[in-house]
Amino acid sequence: MTFRASILSLYPEMFPGPLGTSLAGRALERGDWELALHQIRDHATDRHRSVDDTPAGGGAGMVLRADILALAIDAASPADDTRPRLLMSPRGRPLDQARVRDLAQGPGAVIVCGRFEGIDQRVIEARGLEEVSIGDYILSGGELAAMVLLDAVVRLLPGVMGNAESGALESFETGLLEHPHYTRPREFEGRTIPDILTSGDHARIDRWRREEAERLTRERRPDLWQRFTDS
Amino acid sequence: MTFRASILSLYPEMFPGPLGTSLAGRALERGDWELALHQIRDHATDRHRSVDDTPAGGGAGMVLRADILALAIDAASPADDTRPRLLMSPRGRPLDQARVRDLAQGPGAVIVCGRFEGIDQRVIEARGLEEVSIGDYILSGGELAAMVLLDAVVRLLPGVMGNAESGALESFETGLLEHPHYTRPREFEGRTIPDILTSGDHARIDRWRREEAERLTRERRPDLWQRFTDS
Repeated sequence: MTFRASILSLYPEMFPGPLGTSLAGRALERGDWELALHQIRDHATDRHRSVDDTPAGGGAGMVLRADILALAIDAASPADDTRPRLLMSPRGRPLDQARVRDLAQGPGAVIVCGRFEGIDQRVIEARGLEEVSIGDYILSGGELAAMVLLDAVVRLLPGVMGNAESGALESFETGLLEHPHYTRPREFEGRTIPDILTSGDHARIDRWRREEAERLTRERRPDLWQRFTDS
Repeated sequence: MTFRASILSLYPEMFPGPLGTSLAGRALERGDWELALHQIRDHATDRHRSVDDTPAGGGAGMVLRADILALAIDAASPADDTRPRLLMSPRGRPLDQARVRDLAQGPGAVIVCGRFEGIDQRVIEARGLEEVSIGDYILSGGELAAMVLLDAVVRLLPGVMGNAESGALESFETGLLEHPHYTRPREFEGRTIPDILTSGDHARIDRWRREEAERLTRERRPDLWQRFTDS
């Protein structure tokens, strides 16, 4: 089953963009995943092709209309579509690797990219949009957020990652930050590779890496460390 | 002073990509910010132009060499460069809107985009790279993460956002998630705009929005709510 992504956006021409290069791009060419693009504006109903209006109750910015977006969603994703419908939004549940893995095991995703001040709340409810946030910062729109989500998902699809690239996944999935990496040359500006890594003693190397990963996580991310020790 | 971004990447052709469109793209055309691209591979020293090698101590994946990356950094950012040197990495400090604002008030950023299993730890230390994470998920590389960071920063640069777009910022900066939005039509599939928003009573509207923002934050993001009530 091929992972099918459908993007609803006012800037569909941004896609595939970075997703057309490198790992995700090669996977797209091979057909490991599919990308369908939908211009929300094509569903505007007036001759100005307007999609937004001023917020009820006043205030700055414009709000994407529920009726127009609903038409776009219905065109991209029929009622019997089993794919989750995501709305990229800083109000959403923070994306994490567990959710990424979950999405990668499913049939795909319908992804609405917000713009303007926001989206009419009624279409979020009426079409069951799941709000997803990629982090606690504000972007100019949901397009980059959708690309981030898809890049993370696509690399987990069957056949996409070669062995050479699979290590990163495993180390993240322990719930810890990654240990430091070293490679040749043995000396760089007077700094040497830690002796233990060139000792050939794999049990000690594994223990050192594990201890470094735990130390980094404790120092940098007390929140992850807490979750790790609780589990 | 123009915000100057320098990107170091093995895929500089990904840029400006989405940053060449819409808000960030118009700002780039106007010269509100500058983007310099550097191909790390141009600093390879062998005839195969190799930039990576196997990890010291064994294991999967490849590690970006300290010496090659140091040459690329020194070419992009001389010793007297006052811009912060960022490394996009899931091991980094999570990006938030406060750090975005901070960066937007500075001279720019030198941004290293990782690939492969990781980057030799010694160049991180020797060149004072600040590791920044955009979220707790793994991407195929740092390029999309760099774009996310720049998109968030660029929209805060002087002159970039019009009044129409400035509302989102203000509401995030309260430390709360945004309240729900509504716009015309008044009725959508039997769902109406909450009466209070069409009452014309602005004090009550403000109070309702504030209460909704608090409720959403409490329900969806206990971590943000805790930080909000602590401050």
